[in-house]
Amino acid sequence: MKLKADRATLIKALAHVQSVVERRNTIPILANVMIAVKDGKLTLTATDMEIAIVEDVPATSIRNGACTAPAATLYEIVRKLPDGAEVELDHPGGDAQLSLRAGRYDTKLVVLPVEDFPAMTAGNLPHRFSLGAQTLRSLIDRTKFAISTEETRYYLNGIYLHHAETDDTPVLRAVATDGHRLARVEEPLPEGAASMPGVIIPRKTVNELRKLLDEVTGNVEIALSDTRIQFHADQMLLTSKLIDGTFPEYERVIPRGNDKVLRVGKKDFADAVARVAAISSERSRPVKLSLARDLLTLSAASPEQGTASEELDADRVKYDAGPLEIGFQARYLNDITDQIPEQVEFRFSDGSAPTVVQDAADASALYVLMPMRV
Amino acid sequence: MKLKADRATLIKALAHVQSVVERRNTIPILANVMIAVKDGKLTLTATDMEIAIVEDVPATSIRNGACTAPAATLYEIVRKLPDGAEVELDHPGGDAQLSLRAGRYDTKLVVLPVEDFPAMTAGNLPHRFSLGAQTLRSLIDRTKFAISTEETRYYLNGIYLHHAETDDTPVLRAVATDGHRLARVEEPLPEGAASMPGVIIPRKTVNELRKLLDEVTGNVEIALSDTRIQFHADQMLLTSKLIDGTFPEYERVIPRGNDKVLRVGKKDFADAVARVAAISSERSRPVKLSLARDLLTLSAASPEQGTASEELDADRVKYDAGPLEIGFQARYLNDITDQIPEQVEFRFSDGSAPTVVQDAADASALYVLMPMRV
Repeated sequence: MKLKADRATLIKALAHVQSVVERRNTIPILANVMIAVKDGKLTLTATDMEIAIVEDVPATSIRNGACTAPAATLYEIVRKLPDGAEVELDHPGGDAQLSLRAGRYDTKLVVLPVEDFPAMTAGNLPHRFSLGAQTLRSLIDRTKFAISTEETRYYLNGIYLHHAETDDTPVLRAVATDGHRLARVEEPLPEGAASMPGVIIPRKTVNELRKLLDEVTGNVEIALSDTRIQFHADQMLLTSKLIDGTFPEYERVIPRGNDKVLRVGKKDFADAVARVAAISSERSRPVKLSLARDLLTLSAASPEQGTASEELDADRVKYDAGPLEIGFQARYLNDITDQIPEQVEFRFSDGSAPTVVQDAADASALYVLMPMRV
Repeated sequence: MKLKADRATLIKALAHVQSVVERRNTIPILANVMIAVKDGKLTLTATDMEIAIVEDVPATSIRNGACTAPAATLYEIVRKLPDGAEVELDHPGGDAQLSLRAGRYDTKLVVLPVEDFPAMTAGNLPHRFSLGAQTLRSLIDRTKFAISTEETRYYLNGIYLHHAETDDTPVLRAVATDGHRLARVEEPLPEGAASMPGVIIPRKTVNELRKLLDEVTGNVEIALSDTRIQFHADQMLLTSKLIDGTFPEYERVIPRGNDKVLRVGKKDFADAVARVAAISSERSRPVKLSLARDLLTLSAASPEQGTASEELDADRVKYDAGPLEIGFQARYLNDITDQIPEQVEFRFSDGSAPTVVQDAADASALYVLMPMRV
């Protein structure tokens, strides 16, 4: 194998694929990236056996072939080469080391046999549809904060992507919950998705995909089966296993009858939450919301430090139901309001019942938040 | 005590003083900042019993008095108040809580008695001189990386500041060493410093002082005794204990006869070191410098990853002594070259002897680096 490539294109692809490599590996070859060149196309592949990222890079191929080399080291080296450098990769074959040359810099990297590199087979992926990168980003951003990190509830460790109906309109829904909060976001159902099974996309896949999407402007082609999902955008192909479990019937926990409505500006609310929460360094302490007609008082207390409160009055708040007191974790409130640009709408039942939060201007996302005792 | 102050001035002073507060304290009052107001002047004080920072803030005093309140919480709260806010602090006295109000925000902070706040007495400071803030920054920046972190060699855990003579000219010298490298920086001796004892300024004091100096443009007044040092700049006063120990006779480890001189551009050299060191993730692995006439080859090896080398030739390197091989820790090389803007001059003796490094254009700083076996 022998090829030449620009540092700039190489570093971009290496950044993508090495990101999937786990820093600690018991299987040495999983620390490696597979480098394959064939007829002017360089292909980089990395995998952790759950996810594989494959990326094509334009290159001048001198001799077709393939090898595997340490992903993190290769990335660090190419990152430190000067801008505009031309990189030559040369692997004579077999156990010989991989040469990387750029100007007067020369490195020889230990390789592992390409035959030992685990291939991640996607199998047959019968369900195929296409989503705009911006739509996919927005589905992910508005749900991923609610993904559970509890390993025992493995079926909550991802985003549940499935089709559903809202007011008789078919939609594609992304749902995540950790038992304390739930995020449900929907977009019009894309063509080809009506027959798809509901699938749970693991958190790491969500995070890796989200990073890749930063640079994508066009469409993402999605293909899936019961056990695998594949995302194809630009020169990148991400294949992932799905979580083998049953997502809970989340609709049951979404309250329907909450009729006490609070509207408040996102920035006013989030800033006040941050200020009253600053009284305590314990992240799990609740912030109390006390509501009266067109008046919201936020408060928090810490036995060691003291108390804090802030009032938002009729200039900033609309509320015309009866008095109510309810507490939430400050961080959970922030995670939701971070997703809402302007006006936040809370719909309460009472001080101990789940609360619905929405963007007042956009019904496509719905959040449910469990209260804490205050 | 009751006063009003602008958020902007208050946050700046709180940032300075709270920085000295240790995050974990067994003595509760050390987590507090002392707030004292008298006749239009607000004074904030924090201490860890080794260092005290006192800062004056312009304020509208309504009622003179003093109290102490949690420094980190107060800082977090004031930081989160909106730009331009006017902050009212009100402490009725005794055990009553401290009220902080800004607009509709109201917090009550638990206080501790001001009588229990440890006063740090500087005692008599007979030696006084003045240094430009830029000069003091430069003395610190070019030495502090070499301060030892080995607690058993406590007398190396700081910068040794003393007066000396270089070529019959009296100078003020800052020296730090951890046994692997040494940094010696000097400036013309300021008036009043000729009689000062040599003192060892502890690392934390060096770091706190350096942060404060970021904002100082004028002079810093320095006063010291055998056991205390005080820095006074703008509205800030930092008082610190000194390390009670004897700094080693460092002149002995500075080689005098090194006659093999290498000159190389700082950026060329530092970039090449970073690239060859990237082959190994172990920070302590050496980078080897192999010298021949006007040719420097840098190389490094890792048993697991492979090898890397880079040549810098006559376009970039001047060297006219005999062949030489010598190894150094990459990080130690970087720490020194980070302090040198353009041309670096190395003076070698042989591959196992201490090497002298200097800025080729500035003799005020001298670095000694111990080689590693390669």
